[in-house]
Amino acid sequence: MDPATKHIGILLFENVEELDAVGPYEVLAFWTRTFPSDGWDVLTLSRDGGLNRCAKGLVIDAQASYATMPDLDVLIYPGGQGTRSHLVDESQLEWVRHQRDRVALMASVCTGALVYAAAGLLKDRPATTHWASLKLLAQLDPSIDVREGERFVDDGDVITAAGVSAGIDMALHLVDRLAGTDRARQVKRGIEYEPSPPV
Amino acid sequence: MDPATKHIGILLFENVEELDAVGPYEVLAFWTRTFPSDGWDVLTLSRDGGLNRCAKGLVIDAQASYATMPDLDVLIYPGGQGTRSHLVDESQLEWVRHQRDRVALMASVCTGALVYAAAGLLKDRPATTHWASLKLLAQLDPSIDVREGERFVDDGDVITAAGVSAGIDMALHLVDRLAGTDRARQVKRGIEYEPSPPV
Repeated sequence: MDPATKHIGILLFENVEELDAVGPYEVLAFWTRTFPSDGWDVLTLSRDGGLNRCAKGLVIDAQASYATMPDLDVLIYPGGQGTRSHLVDESQLEWVRHQRDRVALMASVCTGALVYAAAGLLKDRPATTHWASLKLLAQLDPSIDVREGERFVDDGDVITAAGVSAGIDMALHLVDRLAGTDRARQVKRGIEYEPSPPV
Repeated sequence: MDPATKHIGILLFENVEELDAVGPYEVLAFWTRTFPSDGWDVLTLSRDGGLNRCAKGLVIDAQASYATMPDLDVLIYPGGQGTRSHLVDESQLEWVRHQRDRVALMASVCTGALVYAAAGLLKDRPATTHWASLKLLAQLDPSIDVREGERFVDDGDVITAAGVSAGIDMALHLVDRLAGTDRARQVKRGIEYEPSPPV
């Protein structure tokens, strides 16, 4: 791989919510593998690498560990029941702060935002999360300007998305930011993202 | 597990498209795990079980093999580059026909419909697939009433969805059919499926 390649890492962990991680993975991997000359790559990572049992039972492999992953340009922190233990896991919160010091753009999906809040990353910032966790987000850091009803909140070097499926919209927005609107539209067309909820 | 439990199987294989499989998995696992008393279960399966490398590089575990899987009530056949070899794999097509004889509802996402067409399942039926494969669908079986621009086509005991992300809409429709509209709306709310494509 070209050493100038920029890396987007999607975090996996025990009880990560499946679509929180795989929705953005699909969008970003479709982009980076269809258009490698854009100079971006996406990978999954976890503390120790290897297999992770997700919240709804699916087992997904992390391609890198904290020790083997490349320096990231973008980190995506998905949500799921597994985030609950992260909120009081000081070593995990320290890792998040360490990433904040190095990674230009920190993004979250769903309750991943709770971990960012617990780590202090959202102080005095606008942010969102899954609708059922909006109150907890405010409790974790009362200085957060909690946004309800927004699909994602782009605050420059931090982007937080609403629940689960909102990660797909947020990831398309990332393609738009990182590679332009035409590219984002090509990806949207590629994954035929013309959603039409039947209920 | 209650022996009366009904089973939905999502097929995995080498080069299956990630979101084709995981979109429906999220919807259906959210439903069946949140409401187990509905009597349904969802599992992933593949020819030999175990790990499958998807089309965009993610590695996902299949919980059962063709030999160990339970009798299915619903089979979902995702798409992806991996379907191309299935079109000329007589043992795979024979397995599909064998499932058709036993499984009440056969569903597909994206180019999974091409495999159903090659197996003869879509003869004289309306069906759809990823927009880029509509012509190939018609070539595989000219008797198919190929539908363009529909998110999914429900023809009773066969449902075919359009490309990649359309599997999410199709899966919500499945919940609606199998457990009612209120349940489908609960699942929709749970995964906060209020899509708002930013481009």
